[in-house]
Amino acid sequence: MKNKLSNAIFTVCCFLSVSTALAVEPISPIQPVKNINLAQVELGKKLFFDPRLSLSGHISCNSCHNLSLGGVDNMQFSIGHNWQKGGINTPTVLNSSMNLAQFWNGRAADLKEQAEAPIVNPIEMASNHVLAIKVLETIPGYVIEFRQVFGSAEITIDRVTSAIAEFEKILITPNSRFDQWLLGDPSAINDYELAGYLTFKTSGCVACHNGPGVGGQSFQRLGIKDVYETDHPAQGKADVTGKVSDINVFKVPLLRNIELTFPYFHDGEVETLEEAVDTMARVQRGVTFTRQENARVVAFLKTLTGEQPSFNIPTLPPSGPDTPLPEPFL
Amino acid sequence: MKNKLSNAIFTVCCFLSVSTALAVEPISPIQPVKNINLAQVELGKKLFFDPRLSLSGHISCNSCHNLSLGGVDNMQFSIGHNWQKGGINTPTVLNSSMNLAQFWNGRAADLKEQAEAPIVNPIEMASNHVLAIKVLETIPGYVIEFRQVFGSAEITIDRVTSAIAEFEKILITPNSRFDQWLLGDPSAINDYELAGYLTFKTSGCVACHNGPGVGGQSFQRLGIKDVYETDHPAQGKADVTGKVSDINVFKVPLLRNIELTFPYFHDGEVETLEEAVDTMARVQRGVTFTRQENARVVAFLKTLTGEQPSFNIPTLPPSGPDTPLPEPFL
Repeated sequence: MKNKLSNAIFTVCCFLSVSTALAVEPISPIQPVKNINLAQVELGKKLFFDPRLSLSGHISCNSCHNLSLGGVDNMQFSIGHNWQKGGINTPTVLNSSMNLAQFWNGRAADLKEQAEAPIVNPIEMASNHVLAIKVLETIPGYVIEFRQVFGSAEITIDRVTSAIAEFEKILITPNSRFDQWLLGDPSAINDYELAGYLTFKTSGCVACHNGPGVGGQSFQRLGIKDVYETDHPAQGKADVTGKVSDINVFKVPLLRNIELTFPYFHDGEVETLEEAVDTMARVQRGVTFTRQENARVVAFLKTLTGEQPSFNIPTLPPSGPDTPLPEPFL
Repeated sequence: MKNKLSNAIFTVCCFLSVSTALAVEPISPIQPVKNINLAQVELGKKLFFDPRLSLSGHISCNSCHNLSLGGVDNMQFSIGHNWQKGGINTPTVLNSSMNLAQFWNGRAADLKEQAEAPIVNPIEMASNHVLAIKVLETIPGYVIEFRQVFGSAEITIDRVTSAIAEFEKILITPNSRFDQWLLGDPSAINDYELAGYLTFKTSGCVACHNGPGVGGQSFQRLGIKDVYETDHPAQGKADVTGKVSDINVFKVPLLRNIELTFPYFHDGEVETLEEAVDTMARVQRGVTFTRQENARVVAFLKTLTGEQPSFNIPTLPPSGPDTPLPEPFL
């Protein structure tokens, strides 16, 4: 009885302690995924890995959003159709469901809308909707699976991107050491990393980098306190709205797994986390970190690396006799 | 007691029946993999999927030997560094341990020797051994894993290719319907497919396409009975030996999973299994199959598709501060 009571008290205390931590910290742990259509996830996984969605038959979503490499390709600019150079640094697909909008300038409302764009972008997968659908419609295994998943065999871009988006929703990285700390394990991060987190908070980084994604919740001007110098032509949200007030306003990137997703910023100009922290402190907060402050913020940021996606490689349904063969060298 | 006895008799009969089938058929079932170094397999899997082994950081072994697509890319010629066109149709990596030598012309003695070549081939991964090793040596996770696997942290091409080869040894595709039939299940293939197999045997295809790989056990001249017409410059084994007698002598390809590994032949000129069967019957056996014969041989060949590789996608160790960043657009 005594044991039961003390267990109960312990549980309540833990609960309070966790609740308190959750209540006061601006960063929250990654939540389990809910309300997932598993059939769509399985189909979406295949589509995510299928290079036949590209004109060349060579490029899949996973080519640039490599799930073995933190959901990116670690390049300044990705390699697209015919070895063309991508226009902007590829953001990670991991935890991307936590973004308030997609792309650096937020031009896609959600994952589904985003998934449509690379397929038809001439410097990325370089296909078009007619061809992409024709390819899928002539692959017997997909016809069966679309029927299973959606109730009819009709294959549309809407269904394709719905399935890809559903798969992307499961690409979260829970259980980082920082989340373990948030959830009540004081030993999950060390004092140095904790000090880095305090510097991160007191310097105001959390004003934008907050929530479960440690970012992704707002658009902000890059270069609030000092100019962010770059030759890159992107003007952020202004490229979407045409408004002068939106020039250099970008979606705040997620900092989850940030140690894996180098190089940094929309121009991919910064190779190290140390330089990225230094730059952000200066141009966004007007602060110059000491070497020690910089190092401990970096140490804190590395505690945000979570469990990477873990699932079987998909076996893709083979092309049928009428599937257009890719012609990559035209 | 009676039950035990009848079970024993049944077992003996099954054993005899299986033994008989195995003894008389020129094709044998794929055997389970033995004597595997699992630590090397895990390391080799990472290396197989790691694009940082290429100069561009874009091309991994899996780019052309896509394990989601039957171990090939279903292209006539693969896309290599800087979107260069590959020199010869990419053979599948599945069951490739069953080949007596590697490459169409057999110039590599085994999987280990093969694995070295694409890394340094200027039209494939375009790296060199010094750079590839430097990349791996500066990735902390690899340094630890090489130490675990090989007993010391030294990273050499010899160790890299040993690990990749060990991983490739597990890429077998057992339990095809044809193997189930060979192992004693008469219902595993239907009468039509069986008739196709009989045609395959009586036409002499099994003279070369035999053993567990249904090929891969010998070199043969392409065009024994009739000329194989092609503009492709490859001269087969003659390109290795310089001997006139080796002109157009190629390694007999495996027919396992042949329905997945289109297009066909070293020049990748043939898109369908129907045409491939027609051509081979004509140029190798001097036989013209009727439509019916062709169709049932094709039906038989499709029973050779086995269980595809199934394993978790690897999480690759992140680059370290000294890892050379790829420069794909130089």
